[in-house]
Amino acid sequence: MQDLVAELLNGNRRAAARMISLVENDDPQKRDLLKDLYPHTGNAYVVGVTGAPGSGKSSLVDWLLKVIRKDDLKVGVIAVDPTSPFSGGAILGDRIRMQDHALDSDIFIRSMGTRGSLGGLSRATREAIQVLDAFGKDLILIETVGVGQSEVDIVKTADSTLVVLTPAGGDSVQTIKAGIMEIADIFVINKSDLPGAEKTTAEINQMLDMKSSEVWRPPVVPTVSVSNEGINELWKATQEHRDYMEKSGRLLDIRRERVRRELTEQVEYLVKSRIWDRVKSKIELDSVVEKIVKRKQDPYSTASDLLAAINFYDQDTKEGG
Amino acid sequence: MQDLVAELLNGNRRAAARMISLVENDDPQKRDLLKDLYPHTGNAYVVGVTGAPGSGKSSLVDWLLKVIRKDDLKVGVIAVDPTSPFSGGAILGDRIRMQDHALDSDIFIRSMGTRGSLGGLSRATREAIQVLDAFGKDLILIETVGVGQSEVDIVKTADSTLVVLTPAGGDSVQTIKAGIMEIADIFVINKSDLPGAEKTTAEINQMLDMKSSEVWRPPVVPTVSVSNEGINELWKATQEHRDYMEKSGRLLDIRRERVRRELTEQVEYLVKSRIWDRVKSKIELDSVVEKIVKRKQDPYSTASDLLAAINFYDQDTKEGG
Repeated sequence: MQDLVAELLNGNRRAAARMISLVENDDPQKRDLLKDLYPHTGNAYVVGVTGAPGSGKSSLVDWLLKVIRKDDLKVGVIAVDPTSPFSGGAILGDRIRMQDHALDSDIFIRSMGTRGSLGGLSRATREAIQVLDAFGKDLILIETVGVGQSEVDIVKTADSTLVVLTPAGGDSVQTIKAGIMEIADIFVINKSDLPGAEKTTAEINQMLDMKSSEVWRPPVVPTVSVSNEGINELWKATQEHRDYMEKSGRLLDIRRERVRRELTEQVEYLVKSRIWDRVKSKIELDSVVEKIVKRKQDPYSTASDLLAAINFYDQDTKEGG
Repeated sequence: MQDLVAELLNGNRRAAARMISLVENDDPQKRDLLKDLYPHTGNAYVVGVTGAPGSGKSSLVDWLLKVIRKDDLKVGVIAVDPTSPFSGGAILGDRIRMQDHALDSDIFIRSMGTRGSLGGLSRATREAIQVLDAFGKDLILIETVGVGQSEVDIVKTADSTLVVLTPAGGDSVQTIKAGIMEIADIFVINKSDLPGAEKTTAEINQMLDMKSSEVWRPPVVPTVSVSNEGINELWKATQEHRDYMEKSGRLLDIRRERVRRELTEQVEYLVKSRIWDRVKSKIELDSVVEKIVKRKQDPYSTASDLLAAINFYDQDTKEGG
């Protein structure tokens, strides 16, 4: 398994793909591997792209890739679809177009779906970012379908977030307001050759006016992804946001926040497994469950009792003394 | 607060509504209240209804309510929309129609959206079920929009699950296959007056044929919710499934499983808060975070170190001795 880390650090694509499969499958070995990769991470900048199905998000990412590659950046793309149980390779329909880039060895594309839970998906996305970061990618694009809270959680892993809207969805601006409004660093009005583009832009600007004056005001960038219009401007806006993030110290702030969350999860992971080992070695859980099912006990008091039975609370006394 | 429990048990609707708001807001007092309610739960049967937007799911639930009320059952309806940040009362558009039932004091209707995380929503749904169960409802309908894993998680709280499809979505059967197929106890082909209804029914039956022979084979029930066709048959099928669940012992099995999950969550909740209190009292976390951000440490080893610092591992030695 150490070989896998060495191969990945040497730029072996198959090692990277395999490592992402391991995190996706929540393989027991993944923690050790991620630990070994960790010192090699921290370089990549993460850009999230989200939008409703049909907003042309995928072809936008496609064109964006071409522009980014002109700057000679190594790019990783993780296409996350919370509504799909499929993952890996180019299974999603519109990933097929991405095969244009398949011969460019500095682009790495991967699809991920919900194999297990949504929580699992956002965790796997974060770990896949770590893998591609250690793999040497300068920029990682996280593309995700906008269907609600699930994709908000995923997009939170990005340093800059692009929210793709279309003029057609007259009321979509209203729908999208809560939740998505807060995560957008840049608004993209794709298909802006369609009627209503100006109205949509005006509506967004209105909403931005109402927000308390923050230092970064999200620009609204019109694009027409099918004909490659506005993509250079979009990339420029993204770089400006990155600049802002770096110079203002915001980037360091959110990375601190992420480390804190990661550390929390790791502590809780260790605690949970240890606690359950202890509980199960001392208590016959089936009979406890039976009593709760029969309403002779409630789960809330029982939880406390179980922890008392494994002396979980004693430590406080010990330390306090 | 004890008053709230007493009032709820006495059938006070406002107490029930307030209690649901408390669980939705994850109020610190909710655990004590749920504990007091717990002995009064276990009576209600939970029916989940899920389907894509536009499948006519809401009007189906509407008609179903009328049929159920003829059997003189007290009904609670929780309409969950994972894509909406709104919740409470009759905010969702199609909830307005439900006001037909507003004067029927034995029907209680509530909408819930994602205020926080999706995990939070499925937890709030489970707790709202407990509240309505203790409130004396015989049957609780959980209606949720089908958009992927999120609603699968929510529907898992149901004893019987109705999956609503429409003939129009020719390929929707394919899309819906994974995930939803497994959770359906009854398939409803709504709008079955539209062309393609027979084809859709045939496709579902084909898929069911391929599944290994399970004891319960989900029936496929055609309905036309706008004209109230097939609703009696759907209610009959639901009752048959309930019968099967009760007589086969499956109902007890899944309730055991749910109690086990609830107990697990309660134990982990207590452990987490306790552990973090200890960690924070001993260690200056900010400086640890800083070291991880700078890649001087990794989160995986650091998690272990933190637990060692609060003597978390010592107990094993103590007990082992």
